[in-house]
Amino acid sequence: MPNNRIPLPTVNRLSLYLKCFSELASSGTEYASSDQIARSIGLNPAQVRKDLAYFGKFGRRGFGYHVEQLKEHISKILGTHKQWRLAVVGTGNLGRALLMYPGFQARGFKIIAGFDVDPAKVGWELDGARIYHMDEIEKVIKKEKIDIVVITTPKDSLDAVMARLKETDIKGVLNFAGKHLKDEKIIVRNVDVALELEQLTFFLTNKNIE
Amino acid sequence: MPNNRIPLPTVNRLSLYLKCFSELASSGTEYASSDQIARSIGLNPAQVRKDLAYFGKFGRRGFGYHVEQLKEHISKILGTHKQWRLAVVGTGNLGRALLMYPGFQARGFKIIAGFDVDPAKVGWELDGARIYHMDEIEKVIKKEKIDIVVITTPKDSLDAVMARLKETDIKGVLNFAGKHLKDEKIIVRNVDVALELEQLTFFLTNKNIE
Repeated sequence: MPNNRIPLPTVNRLSLYLKCFSELASSGTEYASSDQIARSIGLNPAQVRKDLAYFGKFGRRGFGYHVEQLKEHISKILGTHKQWRLAVVGTGNLGRALLMYPGFQARGFKIIAGFDVDPAKVGWELDGARIYHMDEIEKVIKKEKIDIVVITTPKDSLDAVMARLKETDIKGVLNFAGKHLKDEKIIVRNVDVALELEQLTFFLTNKNIE
Repeated sequence: MPNNRIPLPTVNRLSLYLKCFSELASSGTEYASSDQIARSIGLNPAQVRKDLAYFGKFGRRGFGYHVEQLKEHISKILGTHKQWRLAVVGTGNLGRALLMYPGFQARGFKIIAGFDVDPAKVGWELDGARIYHMDEIEKVIKKEKIDIVVITTPKDSLDAVMARLKETDIKGVLNFAGKHLKDEKIIVRNVDVALELEQLTFFLTNKNIE
């Protein structure tokens, strides 16, 4: 399977390419040059050519890259050609921001449910997602065929939430709880906003690095 | 300057190492082995040894790595040994979540101010940060010596916000607006939650990659 050979830094850029090709496709562009792609996502053209070479022959000499074909191909690699069903655990400010985030649906993510321990929040509907009590999480995940859970609870609750999720068929977790998480069974991606800020201050402190 | 030679994937892991060494230091651990570090952040020990070798000689044969020294060294590289002054533009759910995020202060980030176009929000205080009207942004950034601005507005407002920021001495932007941003003068880090989900679905779709 060719995906096995895609290096991780390229994987990290796949979403940028997908976004770029989606925008080009919706503006009616049929072919795009590596220069054009590079400009739109802030990379250099050589890097773009190297990255896109991993996906096979989608370029045509003198024309550039076939936008629609590359869009579909990268979408398949990223798994966003199918719709993923999401639930959000924790409905504080961050949880609500995610439950109502307008950019998910267009990228193949549908938020089905939210969970909270606060009985006052149970029964709310936010942009089509219903809020359930945490007590019901295993039942709702099964009934609603949830694929991915986004955790936005305080970090002290993380282990308890994960223990519950391990009893379900959840495949992936996006973890905003601010504590690094790894699991044998469930694939986890950790998002840490302070870490994003640290990456920024790294470049502010070491301006000459790139 | 040795930082110039640190490869980007290692840079991306620096925050994880800093977190790990901070936790070890506060639990009173003086030396840690690469095995111990690797386990706590979910990498393999060979990768840890390779990464830490970029920072110089902090290991002692038979003892492991000196936790406090590495913590301080990485903190300096990341620029988190000083306090950074932050402002948040947009005080919707995400903006408020960031204004009240408990994990910033401990990692060297102090949120000073929020900005919104809604006059009803002006004058609020959220965990010590005051909300100002967008009209005052240049004045407040100067007066409060803000270093970094976190943008949480809808993507349609991004260009207008950036035009205002270019009139200030802001050094860095963390962009949550959901549109990729690059700037000649201001260092930008883009955070896109849908992109984080796509990285997750990539691994769910290509489980055999790692």
